[in-house]
Amino acid sequence: MNEANPDFTIREIGKRRVPSPLSQTVFCDDRRRVLFRHFTDDYDLGAGPEGIPTSLEAAGPRETIFFDPPNVTAAVVTCGGLCPGINDVIRSVVMQLYYRYGVTRIEGIPFGFQGLIPRYGHEIVQLTPEVVKDIHSLGGSILASSRGNQDIGEIVDTLSARGINLLFCIGGDGTMRATERITGEITRRKRTASVIGIPKTIDNDLNLIDRTFGFETAISEAVKVVQCAHVEATGAPMGVGLIKIMGRQSGHIAVSTALAENDVNFVLIPEIPFSLDGKDGFLAVLEHRMRTRRHAVILVAEGAGQEFFGEKRHRGRDASGNIRLFDIGLFLKERIERHFKERNLDLNLKYFDPSYIIRSVPASANDSIYCEILGQYAVHAGMAGKTGMVVGLFNNEFVHLPIDAVTVRKKVDPAGSLWMRVLEATGQPASMR
Amino acid sequence: MNEANPDFTIREIGKRRVPSPLSQTVFCDDRRRVLFRHFTDDYDLGAGPEGIPTSLEAAGPRETIFFDPPNVTAAVVTCGGLCPGINDVIRSVVMQLYYRYGVTRIEGIPFGFQGLIPRYGHEIVQLTPEVVKDIHSLGGSILASSRGNQDIGEIVDTLSARGINLLFCIGGDGTMRATERITGEITRRKRTASVIGIPKTIDNDLNLIDRTFGFETAISEAVKVVQCAHVEATGAPMGVGLIKIMGRQSGHIAVSTALAENDVNFVLIPEIPFSLDGKDGFLAVLEHRMRTRRHAVILVAEGAGQEFFGEKRHRGRDASGNIRLFDIGLFLKERIERHFKERNLDLNLKYFDPSYIIRSVPASANDSIYCEILGQYAVHAGMAGKTGMVVGLFNNEFVHLPIDAVTVRKKVDPAGSLWMRVLEATGQPASMR
Amino acid sequence: MNEANPDFTIREIGKRRVPSPLSQTVFCDDRRRVLFRHFTDDYDLGAGPEGIPTSLEAAGPRETIFFDPPNVTAAVVTCGGLCPGINDVIRSVVMQLYYRYGVTRIEGIPFGFQGLIPRYGHEIVQLTPEVVKDIHSLGGSILASSRGNQDIGEIVDTLSARGINLLFCIGGDGTMRATERITGEITRRKRTASVIGIPKTIDNDLNLIDRTFGFETAISEAVKVVQCAHVEATGAPMGVGLIKIMGRQSGHIAVSTALAENDVNFVLIPEIPFSLDGKDGFLAVLEHRMRTRRHAVILVAEGAGQEFFGEKRHRGRDASGNIRLFDIGLFLKERIERHFKERNLDLNLKYFDPSYIIRSVPASANDSIYCEILGQYAVHAGMAGKTGMVVGLFNNEFVHLPIDAVTVRKKVDPAGSLWMRVLEATGQPASMR
Amino acid sequence: MNEANPDFTIREIGKRRVPSPLSQTVFCDDRRRVLFRHFTDDYDLGAGPEGIPTSLEAAGPRETIFFDPPNVTAAVVTCGGLCPGINDVIRSVVMQLYYRYGVTRIEGIPFGFQGLIPRYGHEIVQLTPEVVKDIHSLGGSILASSRGNQDIGEIVDTLSARGINLLFCIGGDGTMRATERITGEITRRKRTASVIGIPKTIDNDLNLIDRTFGFETAISEAVKVVQCAHVEATGAPMGVGLIKIMGRQSGHIAVSTALAENDVNFVLIPEIPFSLDGKDGFLAVLEHRMRTRRHAVILVAEGAGQEFFGEKRHRGRDASGNIRLFDIGLFLKERIERHFKERNLDLNLKYFDPSYIIRSVPASANDSIYCEILGQYAVHAGMAGKTGMVVGLFNNEFVHLPIDAVTVRKKVDPAGSLWMRVLEATGQPASMR
Repeated sequence: MNEANPDFTIREIGKRRVPSPLSQTVFCDDRRRVLFRHFTDDYDLGAGPEGIPTSLEAAGPRETIFFDPPNVTAAVVTCGGLCPGINDVIRSVVMQLYYRYGVTRIEGIPFGFQGLIPRYGHEIVQLTPEVVKDIHSLGGSILASSRGNQDIGEIVDTLSARGINLLFCIGGDGTMRATERITGEITRRKRTASVIGIPKTIDNDLNLIDRTFGFETAISEAVKVVQCAHVEATGAPMGVGLIKIMGRQSGHIAVSTALAENDVNFVLIPEIPFSLDGKDGFLAVLEHRMRTRRHAVILVAEGAGQEFFGEKRHRGRDASGNIRLFDIGLFLKERIERHFKERNLDLNLKYFDPSYIIRSVPASANDSIYCEILGQYAVHAGMAGKTGMVVGLFNNEFVHLPIDAVTVRKKVDPAGSLWMRVLEATGQPASMR
Repeated sequence: MNEANPDFTIREIGKRRVPSPLSQTVFCDDRRRVLFRHFTDDYDLGAGPEGIPTSLEAAGPRETIFFDPPNVTAAVVTCGGLCPGINDVIRSVVMQLYYRYGVTRIEGIPFGFQGLIPRYGHEIVQLTPEVVKDIHSLGGSILASSRGNQDIGEIVDTLSARGINLLFCIGGDGTMRATERITGEITRRKRTASVIGIPKTIDNDLNLIDRTFGFETAISEAVKVVQCAHVEATGAPMGVGLIKIMGRQSGHIAVSTALAENDVNFVLIPEIPFSLDGKDGFLAVLEHRMRTRRHAVILVAEGAGQEFFGEKRHRGRDASGNIRLFDIGLFLKERIERHFKERNLDLNLKYFDPSYIIRSVPASANDSIYCEILGQYAVHAGMAGKTGMVVGLFNNEFVHLPIDAVTVRKKVDPAGSLWMRVLEATGQPASMR
Repeated sequence: MNEANPDFTIREIGKRRVPSPLSQTVFCDDRRRVLFRHFTDDYDLGAGPEGIPTSLEAAGPRETIFFDPPNVTAAVVTCGGLCPGINDVIRSVVMQLYYRYGVTRIEGIPFGFQGLIPRYGHEIVQLTPEVVKDIHSLGGSILASSRGNQDIGEIVDTLSARGINLLFCIGGDGTMRATERITGEITRRKRTASVIGIPKTIDNDLNLIDRTFGFETAISEAVKVVQCAHVEATGAPMGVGLIKIMGRQSGHIAVSTALAENDVNFVLIPEIPFSLDGKDGFLAVLEHRMRTRRHAVILVAEGAGQEFFGEKRHRGRDASGNIRLFDIGLFLKERIERHFKERNLDLNLKYFDPSYIIRSVPASANDSIYCEILGQYAVHAGMAGKTGMVVGLFNNEFVHLPIDAVTVRKKVDPAGSLWMRVLEATGQPASMR
Repeated sequence: MNEANPDFTIREIGKRRVPSPLSQTVFCDDRRRVLFRHFTDDYDLGAGPEGIPTSLEAAGPRETIFFDPPNVTAAVVTCGGLCPGINDVIRSVVMQLYYRYGVTRIEGIPFGFQGLIPRYGHEIVQLTPEVVKDIHSLGGSILASSRGNQDIGEIVDTLSARGINLLFCIGGDGTMRATERITGEITRRKRTASVIGIPKTIDNDLNLIDRTFGFETAISEAVKVVQCAHVEATGAPMGVGLIKIMGRQSGHIAVSTALAENDVNFVLIPEIPFSLDGKDGFLAVLEHRMRTRRHAVILVAEGAGQEFFGEKRHRGRDASGNIRLFDIGLFLKERIERHFKERNLDLNLKYFDPSYIIRSVPASANDSIYCEILGQYAVHAGMAGKTGMVVGLFNNEFVHLPIDAVTVRKKVDPAGSLWMRVLEATGQPASMR
């Protein structure tokens, strides 16, 4: 391969240079290089500067493992909101345990952590290859899910009582925090049981994780909604399609949707504050567009613009411990309609709130493959005796991460190239303040 | 983030070790680490051992560039077989040139390199944002494509005559080789023109490139065909669904499809030779399955089993210079039917040849985003005066690669974890020889 | 054919009879017959008893027609809400006029009747085969639409000024009433111009018309939403999926959706009043189901339950002259949640309002064919000099109908077999009062 | 309703008449009327002229029935090729018998009539609501199917031995003929058992039946293939997309597909013979198109052009008793390629044979509803003691038909309006002989 060019030098047609006309751009130094190897066998790297690790533990099957398969009783629990691919992960965990490791006692915990609290009376089910073989064609979770904190002691009591020594928890932030506490309680009790997290958030905003399962499927579905909104916006005089989409703390879904379907004109996300009023505010910018172009499609992440609700924000948390969000979608709808009414401009605003339609579909082929691998690596880690960790994809390699490493949010960087591409694709101003 | 645990150590529940029951597995050393940073600012790394580079040039917009936008006449040409996403790439190149760099003269070369040879009489079209804005919703290539070598001198004559000094070539192996020769001829003539390749192969088998555009879309479509084949196989006594799928030199499409849709029972790919006859041969294994399970789905890559055709293989090349393949699909169909007939077993074999249906659909949302970014990076590279190179995704980062670096094929490793997962998912024997 | 059995007698295995166990059924007399021929050449049938006609004028191309094609200036206008298939109808009208009748002056009126009122300043476009050839792949209306009454005199002024003598109006009730008035005004002015209506309502509730275009597509889309609602309802403890669907005055969409996707447990439509409270009321029935089955999917037509809003109902009409409906969806959501809260039952209600997503998709293949034929018959009628009429499918034959014949609503018969099938499919009680 | 206009007279703008410019048209007499009522209570109509019945027995639930539900053992068998909707019909029959009539013994016969012949050893399954409730989401037949004649005596022996007295046969021509013979044998043996046929042919060519189930779904799928063929045809120099589609004796699928997706340029069906050679033959017409338009999409029904195979046609029948067809698709492919090669014209022909992909998908929403009703009416007829009959939709009403009435084929009329619309949509000449 390329012997004459061992460092893969790129040719150039000349040395002259003019300034780039690009604005709003994060430029790339011409000498920047991407390392070819990103594995290392130098096992004692230790931590890098500023607490950033120099490396992460690679995931994969270990040649020697901790558990004797006949002694394992595994369990799977799914928590929090639905997300495409949960059933694929369940299926993969069961298939891998059963056929590859020979673990045949696998319990399905129904309705999230509620299923481990006896007083709810939910019935735990046995998971076998026969039970799970076709579930990847269904949306949702065959185990069903729930939100809300349950008593960690009671959970560990149930695990002990049933002899469960390998627990897979599929869920989001709150679930991962509970997983951490369950791990701690097990350690405190000196029980020999492993707890493996498989992080789930349709928002794709987990720190250190390339992408979360279900995200690509969600984008595919969101794109269809944008197409409908565009049809509605262009199908009536002064038509506006306003779509509220998932994204509590980050705008990744909104951003990727806008990049995939270029009929979006405004993307509003939690990371980029904006003003409504004032001459550079969103309403003025929208008015200008409507006066000149006569139609618009607006995509707003549910967590955007929470600052408009001021002190009232402190109104508590939902069963999962998430801060209750104000409904920015209906708020914007009302404010936009009022703004145009005050200016005697007839507006045809159509409001879309498709989150439940997006998150409950079966996983796409690509997500399905991804979920299968995630489940397999989770099983490898658990059988090897790892605990209190999650599996994730990092720079295209599957790795093990401590649970607390992923509960930090990955945000859209307002100065990064992703957001720059959104500004380009939509034509919206860099600032609406 | 995780200050108490700067090297991201993973906890374990104990130190005892038993051998893993996994067979056919590439084990992962427990101390293997994935590097956290994969960029480097150490610009003088040079080549690594064995001609493997230590790093690759990062793609991205340069702060100073070679071309004055008003002096640029760009052109786009698409060659070889169709693939989902070509139109997305064309669209992205045009949008990026036009709106971001201010390049307004962009020519669309019709029917591949034929369009640059005057005697074919194809009419070159002007590409503007208006022309390309909705083309991502169409399959195929709006410029159309062609196969076959054209005279490099004539091509460069036409480029000169039209003043084209920035050429984007979207195509496969043959196209990339031609692109290299065009670059060479331009250099020889001391013309100032840049040639940028955007590699296209639905087979996803380009060396050093994480995935090729259109591949994920192809898997989604192939999965639907497998579902049909499974319905047919289970819908008749002794039903067999036999699917020939793309994959001339590699089995990536077959492999990913089988992993995404677990109703496939046999995957036959070019990388894994197999015998038909003999007690461990494919026909015997299939017969055993049919006698016990009564149905089967077989997925065969078009390049598999070419060794059965022996010397006859030397029967020339197609217009693109690809070796003509024998039709392994029809061959297998005939051999399977004959095998069962000789044993007086009624077989209901349904044959599927869906390649043209798979490759001509529009790109999925995720592929669409990928194509858009590819096009943008190609433009950045071209405007910076790079030439004789391709853009690609390597370990999740976009990089510049010399053209000849990607014309080597990426194969499915018969001993790697990807193929192991296929063996698991299908249950087929590791060897059928 | 069947010479031995000229009256197509059906055999029976015996004469004994027991009562049918079916309840809630409209029985069919065993001697009831369906006429074989439903055309007639007996042209003087006149009216039947009770004002019901004995026959309707058959649609189709006439051998001699009224208009000389070179003298025709046609126009197409689309009014009211969007509906799958509008573009297919536009396309068909244009293609038929242009290629078959040789009418080349075809104007596209933008934004409904607004486009015929000069002060709105909308620009009328020329429709040619080139313009319309691919529009059937788009949702919505390429001409865009509007609601609201416009001055009939001004409309006819514009028609006269532009020389339009063949106008096709695609729209709903309000549009058909306006079409009737335009016809009257043209007649009063003794102008020679034909006005043909093509009735559009996604609700499929036009009197005398088998099915309206777009309805089947809408059902396909609504089915997907029901599947999502079922996934959500079964994916959480005490899950309820509540879907508000189109159907202002009739429940056809809700009914057909429930029949196509049997996971619906309650269908609430305008034709079947119900109580909320009381021991047989909807809330009590729902509570019973939730206590026993733990999940439910509810499909409510937007026009259902308007009686709950009492006198307040008189709150005016929208721009199309439709009575403003109270939002039964949000009302039910609030009442259901309150009911369960009062009983200390945790409920997970997910609310779906998918109307804009359903109505803005492109037509399905079958609807597309239907729209094409509708457009062709409309052109045949117009060229023959018919006016003040609509084309429609009646008992599988295309017919001409006076406009006022179709402005009566077709309701779901609470005692008919269609509704009986819904009761069966859902298991809901025949009465919830 | 319309009291002032009791006969629904259509207004006209004037009496002058010019000849219609339409060619190739079946004109409609302006006085032709469609009867308003198509039911009759005049029960003694007898046969009409020429053996055509004046009326057909209406389907529906009878108030008194023949069978006591507790005494019924029902069975369902599915025969012949797969078709979208079979599972919907099975599901409907089971649900209707079980929940509405209280028949709880329902047997599922596997692999068609083979399942009633003991020596095949197939295991008969019990069908319950639990078994069938989700099967409408699957393509194919959960009972599986088979082709081929089985001994009628043995079949009736098995029915007797198992006490089956109500048999539902879902299948095509051959199946209906077998159903007739089974009915005869039961009668001869003086057993009290009813046999009801539910006709299945994806080709939509049953005499007297408006449309067969699965047909609309098939069109939807075929349209997607045409879109791919169009992409391929326009994506290469001199591109031809050649699609072989279902249609043994009639061209309904090809015709409806061409009408739904107007990118088809040639439709070749069994009803319209054509020549290959000669100056007006298909090859000359195609050559002309390719020289002028440079691309073409050809849709050929599998039964078209069988006359080219001359005497050789007599080569026997398949297991279902269908005459073996020559492969017109591959034949045309070879002849077209040879024709252009002889003229030194490079052609890029892509061949599509999508039948198995089309027929094995789940039913569309609309087909699903239709199948449900068909199954319900079949049960009503059977419980009423009807036998030797099929249920079908005739002029929008469900009727009972003697089995032999539907085994005659419904052809596309070369002089009818359906075919005229195809000529229009494709632009192909009325005759290519």
